[in-house]
Amino acid sequence: MPDLTREAVLTWDAEDPLRSFRGRFATVGDDLCYLDGNSLGRPPAETAERLAKVVTDEWGGGLVRSWSTWIDWTRRLGDVLGTRLLGAGEGEVVLSDSTSVNLYKLAAAAVTSWTERHPGVAGTILFDGEDFPTDRYVVQGLAAERGLTARGVAPDELESALSEDVALVVLSLVNYRTAELLDMASVNAMAREAGTRVLWDLSHAAGALPVRLAEAGAELAVGCTYKYLNAGPGAPAFLYVRRDLQPLLRQPVWGWFGQRDQFAMGPEYEPAAGIERFLAGTPPILSLAAVEPALEVCVAAGIDEIRRKSVRQCELIIELADRWLHGYGIRVDTPRSERRRGGHVCLRGPDMWRLCQALAHAGVIGDFRAPDCLRLAPAPLYTRFSEVWDAMDRLRSILENGLHERFSARPGRVT
Amino acid sequence: MPDLTREAVLTWDAEDPLRSFRGRFATVGDDLCYLDGNSLGRPPAETAERLAKVVTDEWGGGLVRSWSTWIDWTRRLGDVLGTRLLGAGEGEVVLSDSTSVNLYKLAAAAVTSWTERHPGVAGTILFDGEDFPTDRYVVQGLAAERGLTARGVAPDELESALSEDVALVVLSLVNYRTAELLDMASVNAMAREAGTRVLWDLSHAAGALPVRLAEAGAELAVGCTYKYLNAGPGAPAFLYVRRDLQPLLRQPVWGWFGQRDQFAMGPEYEPAAGIERFLAGTPPILSLAAVEPALEVCVAAGIDEIRRKSVRQCELIIELADRWLHGYGIRVDTPRSERRRGGHVCLRGPDMWRLCQALAHAGVIGDFRAPDCLRLAPAPLYTRFSEVWDAMDRLRSILENGLHERFSARPGRVT
Repeated sequence: MPDLTREAVLTWDAEDPLRSFRGRFATVGDDLCYLDGNSLGRPPAETAERLAKVVTDEWGGGLVRSWSTWIDWTRRLGDVLGTRLLGAGEGEVVLSDSTSVNLYKLAAAAVTSWTERHPGVAGTILFDGEDFPTDRYVVQGLAAERGLTARGVAPDELESALSEDVALVVLSLVNYRTAELLDMASVNAMAREAGTRVLWDLSHAAGALPVRLAEAGAELAVGCTYKYLNAGPGAPAFLYVRRDLQPLLRQPVWGWFGQRDQFAMGPEYEPAAGIERFLAGTPPILSLAAVEPALEVCVAAGIDEIRRKSVRQCELIIELADRWLHGYGIRVDTPRSERRRGGHVCLRGPDMWRLCQALAHAGVIGDFRAPDCLRLAPAPLYTRFSEVWDAMDRLRSILENGLHERFSARPGRVT
Repeated sequence: MPDLTREAVLTWDAEDPLRSFRGRFATVGDDLCYLDGNSLGRPPAETAERLAKVVTDEWGGGLVRSWSTWIDWTRRLGDVLGTRLLGAGEGEVVLSDSTSVNLYKLAAAAVTSWTERHPGVAGTILFDGEDFPTDRYVVQGLAAERGLTARGVAPDELESALSEDVALVVLSLVNYRTAELLDMASVNAMAREAGTRVLWDLSHAAGALPVRLAEAGAELAVGCTYKYLNAGPGAPAFLYVRRDLQPLLRQPVWGWFGQRDQFAMGPEYEPAAGIERFLAGTPPILSLAAVEPALEVCVAAGIDEIRRKSVRQCELIIELADRWLHGYGIRVDTPRSERRRGGHVCLRGPDMWRLCQALAHAGVIGDFRAPDCLRLAPAPLYTRFSEVWDAMDRLRSILENGLHERFSARPGRVT
C-alpha cells in the first residue's frame, strides 16, 4: 500500500460496492468510529418499525391468534440464516435460546450419543483453552456432570490430542480475541478419522465471512446473531445439526417446543422429527422479530461481498498498526494471511484498557478483552474505510500525546 | 346472585376499583371478549414506546456501551417481580431463559444436590401427571439422563407417594387446565418432612394471585411472564431460589452470565455468589425491555386487588355456566372454592374444539386444551365484567342455535 493517505481511503469508500448499505442502518452520531460490531452490531433502520408492527398489530391486534404466524419463526429464520449465510441446507438451522444453552444442548446430545457407543469408557471433551469463556465453561460443566474429562488444547495441537477416548471437540471457527480462523474442513476430517464429532461455535464468523457448513463436512454448530448479524442485544442464538444426524441425537432439555405434536399435549415426550427437536421452550418473539430485518440486510449485500470488504478493512488496520503503533510496543496478534483470519483485528500491548477508554473518549469504539487485547472490528455493512483510518489515526494521536494515561488502569465491565 | 342481569354487571364495571387500568393496555378491537390472558396477556400501552426507545436510543445511540445499563436487568426486574408479586426477598428471583430451560436448570441442580447426599440410591422425581406438557417432559428427560425414575401422581396422592427415595417434586401451583390451586405451604411442609424439595411452576399463578413464596416456605420456583404478567409472546421467564439454598445448588449450564467475575474471562467457571449463578447466556434485551412496563402495571394495581376481581369474575363464569350451559352437557371442572382456584375456569364437555372456534367467530377468545377443555380466563387488569357476561351469553347463543356444528372437529394449533 504505497500511497496510503486519507484521501486514497476516501476513494475506496466512494468506490465501495457496499457503500449504500450504511443507509440501511440506524446511524445516530455519524462521526462515531464504531469498530465493535463483533460485540454488538448496529440496528438496521427497519428494525424499530418491524418491532412496532409486531407489538401493535400482531401482539396487540392479533393477540394469542398471532401464534399461527409466530409458531414457525425459529425454523423459517433458521432456514434463511442457514441457507444464505452458513452454507447449510433447509431444515438444518433453527433460532433458539442463547449460545450458551445451545452449546449445552448440542454438546450434551453428542456426548450422550458417544457414551452409548462407548459404554464404560470415561471420555474426554477437547476444547480450545483460549476460547470464549462461555464455551469453556459450558464444556467444563457438562464434563463435571457426566463424569468426563474436559481438556483445553491449542487448535494446532488438536491432531495429536485426538484419540479414541475423545467424545467431542468444541471449537470456535474464529477466535474471539485473535480472530484466528480455523480450517473447518480439515478439522472435521481429522475428527471424523478419530471417530469423534466437532461442535463449532460460529459466533465470530456468522455474517462476517461465508461459512460453508455442508461443504466442510460440519456436523454440529451454534452461534449468536447479535454480532455481525445485527439482530440486537442478546438476540436469539442459532444451532445447526446436519440432517442425517438429527434422528440420532437427543438433547437434554425436553421442552414442549421440541415435541413432535406440540399441541396434542400427550403423556410422553417424543422429539420432533427434524431440527425442531433441538428447541426447548417458547421462543422470545419480540427479540426474534429483530432477526428478520437483520438477516435481510446481510443477504441483500451478499456474504462474499461482505467478506471481500472485511478483508480489505482488516488489512488497512494491520498496515496502519504496523506503521504507526509498532513503536509503542503494540503488535498485531491476528494472522496475516486472510485465509487464517476472521473479521476483526487484535492488537496486544501494554495499557490496552486505558487505550480503549481514551479511544472511546475520542469517539472510537473498540473493545478490550482481558488481559491485554484491544479488538477492532470493521463491519462491512456500515463501517467506512475512512472510519477505520480515523480510528487508527486517533489511536496514534492518543499514543503520541500520552492521552490514555489519565484513564483508570483497572478494567471495568464491557461486553 | 339473584339479580344477575347484564345491567347489574355493568354496574360492577362502573364500580370496579381497577376500571381505569384497562386504559393502560393497547386494546385494539374493543368489542373483542378476550378471555385468553392466561395464554398471552395484552400489551401494556407503554410497551411499544419503551421498545422503540431501547432500539433507537439505547441500541442505536448507545450501541455496545448500553450494556452498562442492560447488564443488571435480569436481576433488577427479578427483584420487582419477586418482592412485589411473588412474596420473595431481594436477590431471590431473576429473569432468565424460557420456563422449560429454567425448569431443567433448577430440577437438575436439585437432583444433583440430592444425589450427592444419597450416593448409590436411584431416586425418583414426582410430578403431577396432569401438569403442563413442558413440565412433564422436562422431568422425564432429566430422569432419563440421570438414571432416575420419573413418576406422575395426582396432587392429592402426593402425601402417600412421598418417600425417602424422592429426589424432587415438580408441581404447578395452578393447574393449566382445571385451574386447581394447590396449598403451597402444606405441600412444602410435607416435602420437607420427607427430606425432599419442591420445584414450583408458577406460570398460571404469577400476576393472577398473590404468591407468597417466603411465607409458604418455598425453596425453588420458575414461571413465565407472558400470561397474566403481560410481558409479550415468549417473554423471558423467571426463576426463584431461596437465598440460603443458593450457595448449595449448582445448575448445569455453566454460561458466562452465571460466572462470578464475568469479564475477567478467567480459566475456570466459578458460579456467582447469588441468584445470578442460575443465569446462563446473554439475555434477550429487546424481550426483557417489555417486562418492565408490564410489571409496573401489575404493581400499580396491586396483586391483592387483582385477585379480588379475578375471584369475582371467575365466580360469574361459573354461575353463568351452571345456569346456561349445564343442559348442553358442559360442566365446570374448576374447584368451586376460591381458596382452591386460580385465575381461570375450565369448562369440559363434548365438542369443545368446535365451540372454541365458534366463539372466536363471535368475537370471544378463549382457548382449547386437549382433549375436551375450554379455558376462559378473565384478566382483571383489562377484562370487564360485561365482557365476561357477553362471552358467556354468546356461548349460550352458539349452543342454542347449534352454530358450532359448522366448524371442523379436528383440533388445530393453539398456544
